[in-house]
Amino acid sequence: MPEQHETKTLLIASYLEPEHVERIRQVDQRLDVIYEPDLLRPPRYPADHVGEPVARSAAQEARWRSLLATAEILFDFDHTHREDLPEVAPNVRWVQATSAGIGQFVARMGYAERMPATLFTTASGVHAAPLAEFCLMSILNHYRGLRHLQACQQRHHWERFATTDLQGKTVAIIGLGRIGGEVARLCQAFGMTVIGVRNTLSPVAHVDQLHPPEELHRVLPQAGVVIMIAPHTPQTERMLGAAEFAAMPDGALFINIGRGSTVDEDALIAALQSGKLGGAALDVFAEEPLPASSPLWGMPNVLVSPHSASTSDRENERITDLFCDNLRRYLDGRPLRNVLDVERLY
Amino acid sequence: MPEQHETKTLLIASYLEPEHVERIRQVDQRLDVIYEPDLLRPPRYPADHVGEPVARSAAQEARWRSLLATAEILFDFDHTHREDLPEVAPNVRWVQATSAGIGQFVARMGYAERMPATLFTTASGVHAAPLAEFCLMSILNHYRGLRHLQACQQRHHWERFATTDLQGKTVAIIGLGRIGGEVARLCQAFGMTVIGVRNTLSPVAHVDQLHPPEELHRVLPQAGVVIMIAPHTPQTERMLGAAEFAAMPDGALFINIGRGSTVDEDALIAALQSGKLGGAALDVFAEEPLPASSPLWGMPNVLVSPHSASTSDRENERITDLFCDNLRRYLDGRPLRNVLDVERLY
Repeated sequence: MPEQHETKTLLIASYLEPEHVERIRQVDQRLDVIYEPDLLRPPRYPADHVGEPVARSAAQEARWRSLLATAEILFDFDHTHREDLPEVAPNVRWVQATSAGIGQFVARMGYAERMPATLFTTASGVHAAPLAEFCLMSILNHYRGLRHLQACQQRHHWERFATTDLQGKTVAIIGLGRIGGEVARLCQAFGMTVIGVRNTLSPVAHVDQLHPPEELHRVLPQAGVVIMIAPHTPQTERMLGAAEFAAMPDGALFINIGRGSTVDEDALIAALQSGKLGGAALDVFAEEPLPASSPLWGMPNVLVSPHSASTSDRENERITDLFCDNLRRYLDGRPLRNVLDVERLY
Repeated sequence: MPEQHETKTLLIASYLEPEHVERIRQVDQRLDVIYEPDLLRPPRYPADHVGEPVARSAAQEARWRSLLATAEILFDFDHTHREDLPEVAPNVRWVQATSAGIGQFVARMGYAERMPATLFTTASGVHAAPLAEFCLMSILNHYRGLRHLQACQQRHHWERFATTDLQGKTVAIIGLGRIGGEVARLCQAFGMTVIGVRNTLSPVAHVDQLHPPEELHRVLPQAGVVIMIAPHTPQTERMLGAAEFAAMPDGALFINIGRGSTVDEDALIAALQSGKLGGAALDVFAEEPLPASSPLWGMPNVLVSPHSASTSDRENERITDLFCDNLRRYLDGRPLRNVLDVERLY
């Protein structure tokens, strides 16, 4: 027997595959799920949530504003109304983001102050598998000599040689959320020793040692691989500079899959040019897109990835899993998963 | 109180680091461990057991022959006396090899018939970690789009894109000894489904399905990655040819870390050229060194490795671990590990 209930308007604000929209519709009959792809920017690649810039007609824009005006739940931020979201969407009580690192964006837009009754939930956890795979790819290529193999192959040159194993090497992971935890699990599966650096020191699975950020300089000299995953906060801004790269062992591999602003990029470039660092795999940069003039592009010991290491053709499936679970919690009045702490910014 | 005992002469027949020789010396006082590096070929890279061709003086050769004549235990085959080993080393009762795949070599040399009282033990297991790491490197580069990343980087071109995850993909492993088992364990850690193909169907850890070789054509269409690790035996000779590559899914990745003779290399090249296969990572070839004229060198979707994927700077440490354990067994009259079955050739 159907209950009497109030309908809640849920607006999907970035492209999503029809099968995932259908799963959202199935969650609860109290939801009025609005998905009008004609009003949304078309994605440039699977799981692109920003989309190609496309202008709406006046009628389309009016329609879009009327939807925003009634929405209580938003799937994704509306990237066509970043600046005036609080004004055009006054009834929104919850935004489920499609990105994990939204703290700085929410702070810059002043959403916390301008939309005090609104909860923001991140997509934290969704990107753990692809990002961890990117890290392991980079670590394996480093220790197993991919660059040497490719250089020999280019010259059709056969010469047997020895490389070294991940087994027994040490990795330091700075920032141990769900992504760091997945990286740690895989590194341990390869027999690496895992050192974690994070603020809270409660025990974490798959981590052999845990240190607070103040002890970073005790950690770095031990780590043949250093992975930066910390979010961008005032505390982590330019956390790694000349002194930190100097503290790493000669020939170390540096991986950044967090935010470019946590690193002094000039110091990183200098450490790569001097040969202090053996290599780097970088998915994030001080300025994105990475300027064509950056020396990083041309360095043979650097892998440049266009902020796509987290982007998987399975991303929308995973975000929808998380969103559907959060929808049930929201409708039941239970706490949501991944609520953004607007003070700590993650 | 020291026992009365007979001394056994142990001759180390290829280069080994002094610390490992010392560990062998420590195993038992009944051993007379002879290591004369001046008489051995110098290694070209860590854990090279063949060495640079260097001629011994007449006096050195006489000394070497006198050592061979008295040896009961050989660490490694003597690559300077492959042909006449049975004649120059008539007292040898046990050879500990430094390679895992010695069956064809022992058969070709007729050692089983010419040295019927001699046991041969392989280095099986020693290469599991580096070979499994080579496989995972290749799988990660394939699914996470390394080739695309490198091509964009070369043009200083920033464009976000999506790749796909190992999680949920299927790998078929043909030949499930210790190397295959280690590959299976790591693939499962990444969330892949693992199908094994081997003669004996007793359950194996980390394998989701196990099939006999007769069912190969039921397995291949399911596997986005096919890894060949089977030893070279009459049964496996050219086991994979045009029909098998055709049975794989479009865009599949093929990895060969076993022996080149298990594959019809022309059929492999055709499958790569037609685009049927998405890529290959090859450590072994029909002819080694791979001829400079082979089209494999120049294929952008192929990684050519000079039969070095198993070669790690920790190899001699691991071989010495195995050898020391086998020495204790030998002296105690217990069964040795890794005894070569001279019928099955592995």
